[in-house]
Amino acid sequence: MNLITIAIVLGLLAIVYGVVTSRQVLRSPAGSEKMQEIAAAIQEGAQAYLKRQYSTIAVVGVIVAIILALTLGPISATGFVIGAILSGLTGFIGMNISVRANVRTAAAAQKGLQAGLTLAFRAGAITGMLVAGLALLAISVFFWYLTGVTGHTVGGEDRTVVEALTALAFGASLISIFARLGGGIFTKAADVGADLVGKVEAGIPEDDPRNPAVIADNVGDNVGDCAGMAADLFETYVVTVGATMVLSALLVKDLGDALMTFMTLPLLIGGACIVTSIIGTYFVRLGSSQNIMGAMYKGFLVTAILSIPAIYGCIWVTQQGDMASLIGNQAFNGMDLFWCSLLGLVITGLIIWITEYYTGTQYRPVRSIAKASETGHGTNVIQGLAISLEATALPTIVIVAGIIIAYQLAGLLGIAYAATAMLALAGMVVALDAYGPVTDNAGGIAEMAGLDDNVRTKTDALDAVGNTTKAVTKGYAIGSAGLAALVLFAAYTTDLREFFPQLDVDFSLENPYVIVGLLLGALLPYLFGAMGMTAVGRAAGDVVLDVRAQFREKPGIMTYEEKPDYARTVDLVTKAAIKEMIIPSLLPVLAPIAVYYVIGWVGGQANGFAALGALLLGVIVSGLFVALSMTSGGGAWDNAKKYIEDGHHGGKGSDAHKAAVTGDTVGDPYKDTAGPAVNPMIKITNIVALLLLAALAAG
Amino acid sequence: MNLITIAIVLGLLAIVYGVVTSRQVLRSPAGSEKMQEIAAAIQEGAQAYLKRQYSTIAVVGVIVAIILALTLGPISATGFVIGAILSGLTGFIGMNISVRANVRTAAAAQKGLQAGLTLAFRAGAITGMLVAGLALLAISVFFWYLTGVTGHTVGGEDRTVVEALTALAFGASLISIFARLGGGIFTKAADVGADLVGKVEAGIPEDDPRNPAVIADNVGDNVGDCAGMAADLFETYVVTVGATMVLSALLVKDLGDALMTFMTLPLLIGGACIVTSIIGTYFVRLGSSQNIMGAMYKGFLVTAILSIPAIYGCIWVTQQGDMASLIGNQAFNGMDLFWCSLLGLVITGLIIWITEYYTGTQYRPVRSIAKASETGHGTNVIQGLAISLEATALPTIVIVAGIIIAYQLAGLLGIAYAATAMLALAGMVVALDAYGPVTDNAGGIAEMAGLDDNVRTKTDALDAVGNTTKAVTKGYAIGSAGLAALVLFAAYTTDLREFFPQLDVDFSLENPYVIVGLLLGALLPYLFGAMGMTAVGRAAGDVVLDVRAQFREKPGIMTYEEKPDYARTVDLVTKAAIKEMIIPSLLPVLAPIAVYYVIGWVGGQANGFAALGALLLGVIVSGLFVALSMTSGGGAWDNAKKYIEDGHHGGKGSDAHKAAVTGDTVGDPYKDTAGPAVNPMIKITNIVALLLLAALAAG
Repeated sequence: MNLITIAIVLGLLAIVYGVVTSRQVLRSPAGSEKMQEIAAAIQEGAQAYLKRQYSTIAVVGVIVAIILALTLGPISATGFVIGAILSGLTGFIGMNISVRANVRTAAAAQKGLQAGLTLAFRAGAITGMLVAGLALLAISVFFWYLTGVTGHTVGGEDRTVVEALTALAFGASLISIFARLGGGIFTKAADVGADLVGKVEAGIPEDDPRNPAVIADNVGDNVGDCAGMAADLFETYVVTVGATMVLSALLVKDLGDALMTFMTLPLLIGGACIVTSIIGTYFVRLGSSQNIMGAMYKGFLVTAILSIPAIYGCIWVTQQGDMASLIGNQAFNGMDLFWCSLLGLVITGLIIWITEYYTGTQYRPVRSIAKASETGHGTNVIQGLAISLEATALPTIVIVAGIIIAYQLAGLLGIAYAATAMLALAGMVVALDAYGPVTDNAGGIAEMAGLDDNVRTKTDALDAVGNTTKAVTKGYAIGSAGLAALVLFAAYTTDLREFFPQLDVDFSLENPYVIVGLLLGALLPYLFGAMGMTAVGRAAGDVVLDVRAQFREKPGIMTYEEKPDYARTVDLVTKAAIKEMIIPSLLPVLAPIAVYYVIGWVGGQANGFAALGALLLGVIVSGLFVALSMTSGGGAWDNAKKYIEDGHHGGKGSDAHKAAVTGDTVGDPYKDTAGPAVNPMIKITNIVALLLLAALAAG
Repeated sequence: MNLITIAIVLGLLAIVYGVVTSRQVLRSPAGSEKMQEIAAAIQEGAQAYLKRQYSTIAVVGVIVAIILALTLGPISATGFVIGAILSGLTGFIGMNISVRANVRTAAAAQKGLQAGLTLAFRAGAITGMLVAGLALLAISVFFWYLTGVTGHTVGGEDRTVVEALTALAFGASLISIFARLGGGIFTKAADVGADLVGKVEAGIPEDDPRNPAVIADNVGDNVGDCAGMAADLFETYVVTVGATMVLSALLVKDLGDALMTFMTLPLLIGGACIVTSIIGTYFVRLGSSQNIMGAMYKGFLVTAILSIPAIYGCIWVTQQGDMASLIGNQAFNGMDLFWCSLLGLVITGLIIWITEYYTGTQYRPVRSIAKASETGHGTNVIQGLAISLEATALPTIVIVAGIIIAYQLAGLLGIAYAATAMLALAGMVVALDAYGPVTDNAGGIAEMAGLDDNVRTKTDALDAVGNTTKAVTKGYAIGSAGLAALVLFAAYTTDLREFFPQLDVDFSLENPYVIVGLLLGALLPYLFGAMGMTAVGRAAGDVVLDVRAQFREKPGIMTYEEKPDYARTVDLVTKAAIKEMIIPSLLPVLAPIAVYYVIGWVGGQANGFAALGALLLGVIVSGLFVALSMTSGGGAWDNAKKYIEDGHHGGKGSDAHKAAVTGDTVGDPYKDTAGPAVNPMIKITNIVALLLLAALAAG
C-alpha cells in the first residue's frame, strides 16, 4: 500500500467515526414533545438559511468556475468546484448534527452533567472529524487522481498539479468567506437584536420564548458558530496542507522520484493526527472535580502528546528511516522537520493558553472589564477596547518566535511544517469549538421548554465552557492562518520568479510601491471589518424594529396569551445576512487584481507585482492584529458579563451588569462576525494572487 | 542678506505676531469677578500640572542628554536639549495664552458672536504662530550656527550637522510624546470621570459648578488639547523640515556649494508660509450667513492659495531662477519640487475635507451613529467602531496616491517636499485647533458663572466648530506624520548604506526577519494604544470614586450650600496622569534598540538592521490605521451626541441621547489620548533608529 493510499484510508476513518458517532447521538432520546417542537423550529430556520446561502454562493461559484475554466483550464476549474462543494458540505453536515444534538443534550442534561457533556462533545467531535477527514480526502484523492491516474508529474515543467491544488484551496476559501461572513452576520444580528429589545427594553431573560427573535438567535448559533466555523477550518486545513505541498514542489530540487513521497508527508501527518484526535475524544470525561474545561483539556492534551510520536513516525517513513540526511538541495533533514512540527504543536498550545488568559473569568483581563463596568457603560467599553488591543501582544510574540525558530531550522518549509502540524490538530480543536453552539442551543431549549432550573444550571455550566473554547479556536484559527498566509506569500514570490524570470521585481522596503502595497493591504482588514460591523448593526436594527412591531401587534405575547411569529424574524435576518455578505466577500477577491493592474499601469509590471506582493503581506500583518484584537476582546467582554452574572460587582440586574451587557453586545460582531472572517479573507487575497500569476503566465 | 537669515527673520516675525496679538488678547476685558475666580482656578490647575509634568520629563531628558553626549558628542546633546526645551516651551506658552483667553472669550461672547470668535481665534493663532515660528527658529538658528559659526560642512564626511538635526528632532519628539500622552490622559480621565458621575449618575449638566471634577475637566482641555497638541505639532514640524534637510544632504550629490542653498529651501518654505498664515488669520470673519466654520475655512483657504506663489518664489530663489535644470545628480528640477509641494497642499485639503465628512453632523457617518443610538448603547458603539474602521480608507488612498505621484515627480525627496509643504501650513492649522480648548473653556466658565443663556448659546456654537477643527487637525497631523515617517525611514536606509557599506542588508519582503520586524512594528501602536486606554480608564475610575466621595462627605454640594474641593480632584488627576505616561512613552524609545540587539544576536547584524528597518515601516503602516481610526471614530461619536442634543432622535435626555453619551465617552480616550499620541510615537521610533545607527557607527 503506498503512502497516499494510507492518507486516504485515514481520511475515510474520520468519516467512519463521524457516521458511527452520528448514529449514537441520534439514537439518544430527544426529550419532550415541547422540546422537539422548539428544536424543529430551529432546524427549519437553519436549513432554510443555509439553503438560501448556498444557492446565492452557487451563483458566484459558477461564475468563478467558468472564469477559471477559461483562464486556467478544466482541471483547475474542477479543483475549485471540489473545494467549494466540500467546504459547503462540511458546514451543512456540521449544522445538521448540531441542530439535532442540541435538544438531545438538553434531554441528557436532565440525567446529569456527564451525560450532557458526552452528548454535546460527541456532536462537536463529529463536525471536527468531518472537517479534518473531508479536507484530507479532498487533497489526497485529488492529488492521487492527478499524479496516479492522469499521470501528471510534479517538480518539473508541468504546473497542472500545483495549479489544481491552488484552485482547490480557492474553492474552499471562497465558500468559507461567504459562510463565515453570512453566518456571522446572521448569528450576531439575531443575537444583538434579541438582546437589545428583549433583555434591555422588555426586561425578559435570554432565550425567553416570548421574544420573537429567540428562534433566530438559536438558528444563528448553528449557521454561524457551527457551519461558518466548519467551512473556515476546512479551508484553513486545505490551504495549509495544500500550500505546504505546493511549496515543497516549488522549493525542493534534486529529489527525483522521491519528491512525490516527500509531497505526501503533509497528508500523512494529517492522517496520523486524525487517529490521535479520535483517541483524544475518548478522554474527554469529567474527573472527580467535575471540571468541564479540565475534561476538554484532557482530551486535547492526549491528542497533542500522541501526535508527537505519530508525526515522528510519518517523517521517518517518508525518509525511509533516515532522519539525518539533507533533503534534496535543501539545508535541512527529517529531524529538522520534526522539530518544526513540534514547534507547531507548541505554538498551538501557547496560543490556546494565551487566549484562555485573555478570555477566562479567573484572570486579570476579564476581571478588569468587570470592574470597569461598575463605573458605567463607557468605562466598560473603554477597558474592553484596551484589552482587545493588548491581547494582540503575546500571540504576536509567539508567532514571531515561531517564524524565527522554524526558519532557522528549515527555512520557509520549516514555517510550512509548523503550520501543517498546527492544522493537523484541527479535528480535535473543531470538536472543542463545535461543542459550543450545541450547548448554547441546549440552554435555550431548556429555557423555552420550561425545564427544571437545575437542568438550566447544567446547560449553563456547559455553555460557559463553550464561550472559552470558541474564543480559543478563533485564536488558533487566526494564528495558523497567519503562518499559512506566510507560506502562500512564499509560494507567490517563488512562483513569480518561475513564471517571469526576466522581470526584476524589487520587493525591498525601499521601493515606494512596496510601501504603497503594504498600506493598501493593511487597509483591507479595516475596510472589511467596517463592512461586517455595519452589516450587523444594520441587520440588528431591523430585528429590533421587527420585535417591537410584534410586541405592538400582539400585545398578548408578554402575557403568554399569544405566540410570537418566530419564522418572520428568521426570514428577515436571513434576507439581511445574504444581502450584506456579498460585497465584503468580494473585496479580497477583487482588490489584488485591481492593485496589480493599477500599479502596473502607473509604475510598470515589475512594480505591479511588487505592490501586489506587499499587499499580501500588508493584509497578513494588519489582519493578524485586527482579528486577534477583535476575537479576544469580544470573548473577554462576553465573559466579563458572565463573571458579573456569577454574583460579582453587584450581580445580575445591577448597573454593572447593564454596562457589561453593553460590552457583550459590542463584542458580539467583533468576535463572531468581523474578527473570524478576517481569517479566510487573508488567505483568499493570497490565493487570488497566486491564480492571477498563473493566469498571466498562461495568457 | 543670505537665505538662512531670511528664514530666521520670518521665524522672528511669527514671534512678533505672537507678542503683539497676546497683548491685544490680554487687553480685552476679563469679565466679572466670579468669572475671573473660576478662570484663576483653571489657570492654577493647568500651571501646577504642567510644572509637575515638565519636572518629571526633565529627569528623563537629562538622562537621555547624558547618554547622547557620551555616545554622539556634545553637539548632538545640545541639539537634543534645544529641541526638548523649545517643544516644552511651545506647549507652556500656548497653555498660558489659552487659560487667559478662555474667560475673555466668555466675556466677549456677551457682546456678540463675532467678538467671541475673534478673541478665541486670535488666542489659537498665537499658539499656532509660536509653534511654527519657534520650530522654524530652532532648526534655522541651529543650522546657521553649525554651518556658519562653527564651520561644519554638509554633504561630505562630516556627519555633525546631520546628527545634530536628528538629535534636535529627538528632543522635540521625546517631549511631545510625554506631553501628548500625559496631557491626553489628564484631559480624558477628568472628562470621562466628570461625565460618568456628573451627567450619568447625578444627572447634572456638563460644566455644572457642583461637579467637583469640573475644574479638572477644564484644566484638561488646556493641558491636553492645547499644550499637548502644540508640542506634538512643533515636533512634527521640526522632524519633517529637519528630515527633508537631512535627506537632501544624504541623497543629492554633485551640488558643491549649492548644497547649502538647497538645504535651506525647506526653511524658506516654512518662513514664507508663516507670512501667508498670518495674512490668513485676518480673513477669519463671519459673513452674512454667520457660519463659523465658513469663517475658519476662509482663513485657511486664503493661506493655502497665497502659499502657492510663495512656495514657487522660494524654489525660484534657491534655484537662481532656473526651474528647469536638474538638481545635482538627481532626476528632478525645481518645477518638479514645486509640483510636489503643491501636492502637499492638496493632500492637506483633501484630508481636512475627508475628516470633516467623517466627523461633521451633516454627513452620513455621524448621522448613522446617531440613528444607531436609538436602539441602545450597544448599537451606538458598534456603529461608531464600524465608522472608525471605515474612516481609514479614504485618507489611506489619498496618502498612497500622494506617495506615488511625489515619487514619480522627484523620488524620495518629492515625498519629503510634499510633507514639508503640509507642515508649512502648521501655523494656520494649529490656530484652528488651539481655538478649540479656548471656546470649550469659555463655555464652561459661562455655565459655572451663571451667565445669560444666550451667552452659553454663543459659546456652544463656537465650541461645536471646535470639535470639528480638533478632529481635522488630528487627521492632518497623522497624515503628515505618515509622510514624515517615510522620509525618516528613507534616511535610515540611506544612512545604513553610508555607515555600514560592507553589510549586505536584505530589506526584501522575502527575508523572514523583515516579516518579523513588520509584525513587531505593527504591534507597537496596539500595545501603546492599549496602555493609553487602560490609563484613562483607570484614572477616570479614580475620579469617579473621588467625586462620589465628595458628594458623600459634603451633602450640601448638590444644594449649592457647600463648595466642592476642585483642587483635590485636579491634584488626583495630575498624579495619575504623570504616573501613567512614563512606561508607554518609553516603549517606542526602547523597542527599536531591543529589536536590533535581539534579532542581531539571533540572525546576525545585517538581519538585525533589516528587522529594525521593517519595524520602522511596521510602526508607520499599523500606526497610521490605528491613529486614523481612533481620531476619526472619536470625533464622529462626539458629534453624534451633539447632533442628538440638537433635537434629533429624541434630543437631550432621551434614551438615544444616553446611548450617545456612552459613545462619546468611549471616543474620548480614542480621539484625545491614544490616537493622537500614536503620532509622535511613530516618529520617535524612527528617530531612535537613526540615532542608534549613528551611535553604532561612532562606537
